[in-house]
Amino acid sequence: MIRDIKSISIIGSGNVAFHLGKAFSGLVKINAVYSRNKISGHQLANELFVFHAENLEDLIPSDVFLVCVSDDEITNVIEQLNPDQAIIYTSGSVGLSELPKRVNLGVLYPLQTFSKSRSIDLFEVPFFIEGTNEPFAQAIFDLAWKLSRKVIFANSNDRKNLHLAAVMVNNFTNHIDYLAQQFLKSKSLEWDFLKPLISETAKKIQIELPFDAQTGPAVRGDSKIIEKQMAMLDPETKEIYALLSESIAKHHKK
Amino acid sequence: MIRDIKSISIIGSGNVAFHLGKAFSGLVKINAVYSRNKISGHQLANELFVFHAENLEDLIPSDVFLVCVSDDEITNVIEQLNPDQAIIYTSGSVGLSELPKRVNLGVLYPLQTFSKSRSIDLFEVPFFIEGTNEPFAQAIFDLAWKLSRKVIFANSNDRKNLHLAAVMVNNFTNHIDYLAQQFLKSKSLEWDFLKPLISETAKKIQIELPFDAQTGPAVRGDSKIIEKQMAMLDPETKEIYALLSESIAKHHKK
Repeated sequence: MIRDIKSISIIGSGNVAFHLGKAFSGLVKINAVYSRNKISGHQLANELFVFHAENLEDLIPSDVFLVCVSDDEITNVIEQLNPDQAIIYTSGSVGLSELPKRVNLGVLYPLQTFSKSRSIDLFEVPFFIEGTNEPFAQAIFDLAWKLSRKVIFANSNDRKNLHLAAVMVNNFTNHIDYLAQQFLKSKSLEWDFLKPLISETAKKIQIELPFDAQTGPAVRGDSKIIEKQMAMLDPETKEIYALLSESIAKHHKK
Repeated sequence: MIRDIKSISIIGSGNVAFHLGKAFSGLVKINAVYSRNKISGHQLANELFVFHAENLEDLIPSDVFLVCVSDDEITNVIEQLNPDQAIIYTSGSVGLSELPKRVNLGVLYPLQTFSKSRSIDLFEVPFFIEGTNEPFAQAIFDLAWKLSRKVIFANSNDRKNLHLAAVMVNNFTNHIDYLAQQFLKSKSLEWDFLKPLISETAKKIQIELPFDAQTGPAVRGDSKIIEKQMAMLDPETKEIYALLSESIAKHHKK
């Protein structure tokens, strides 16, 4: 039974592996990194000053293996590991019961977007924890607690719901920003003009509910402006504009 | 001909009037505030330590009247003023040629979202300037320059395009945040969990193009997750999810 995670090896070398590896470095013993992508695996091992395993079998045994690979690959990786090896994965959308049965299998899901070019303060990032048994879940909780003060036990279902909400506020917001950027580009206007607004929009939402923060033509029911703006857009963006404006108007109707 | 705006009176007492009034206070002489809404008009006049005009006719003559009223009301206000009075309005979506002809009529459009509960650093906020004649436009430019180092001359068409892009990155983002918040609420999960992600999403976009910052199931073409997530949503949110995911996938197709 694992009660205290003192050493980890990392499988994967993507954004999550990179950020968690750097964050855990110095707080817990990192033994090795293995990645299917040899180049970025080697880079991460170098960054962490740890052994780079060329093959999964070469991984140095550790209290846990932290599996930071894409959702589709988790099962495949688990099946290649010693069945007694304790494993933590980091996916929001893969349920514990969807994976091969293991005595010590658990989840540490950081609700954040990671990219190698940006350092992130993990202290406020929520980490959602689940495990096949209570002591192991507690051990993962304690491990996450080294990085964050927002550590929460959550079952696979909650985690999936959180991941879906994350897709909405990150991916969809990003895409709307992209469409706005493309629109401005088509009019030879600088995308940079929108940045203070994007920044303030996100800041406002930290203290106000999105419903209360809402402004603009759709919430005012200003159909004249809505029609004019729709006429300015390409068919695809127009459809998105129409659907979102309709939804705003519907929810804000008194 | 107006070359230097030394005094203003403010018409309106909404978020824009409030923020511009406070920002100009001390930098230019504010003579008076008039607002159709007597209560908030009185509040703003008090905040600025200036005369509160009960009627439009009572407004103290000033180099310019700064008209911060809703788009629909601008024409109505202008028609009630002395035709010789220089006027600046603040709307993104109302073209100069759509308003009654005046010798000195101009625009100062701050591309930002304002609410009375938040103070905003205007120094980085872009102000778009237009005027019926060049000296007046330059005078408005100089006035805006007291507040911001991002002052740009822009015609009505550019301003409308910028306003449309602003609606997208602010109103639509807000609404997606709202839908995510409602979804979490329906699952008894805390909305607060998303806040660090929303914050980081906006920060990332300050340094990366939205296209490059994109992650998630739609950009990966992970149709399994997309289908599962759609099945978790109410019909309205599902439709928005589907349309945006489709659009992401389309634009990111190699």
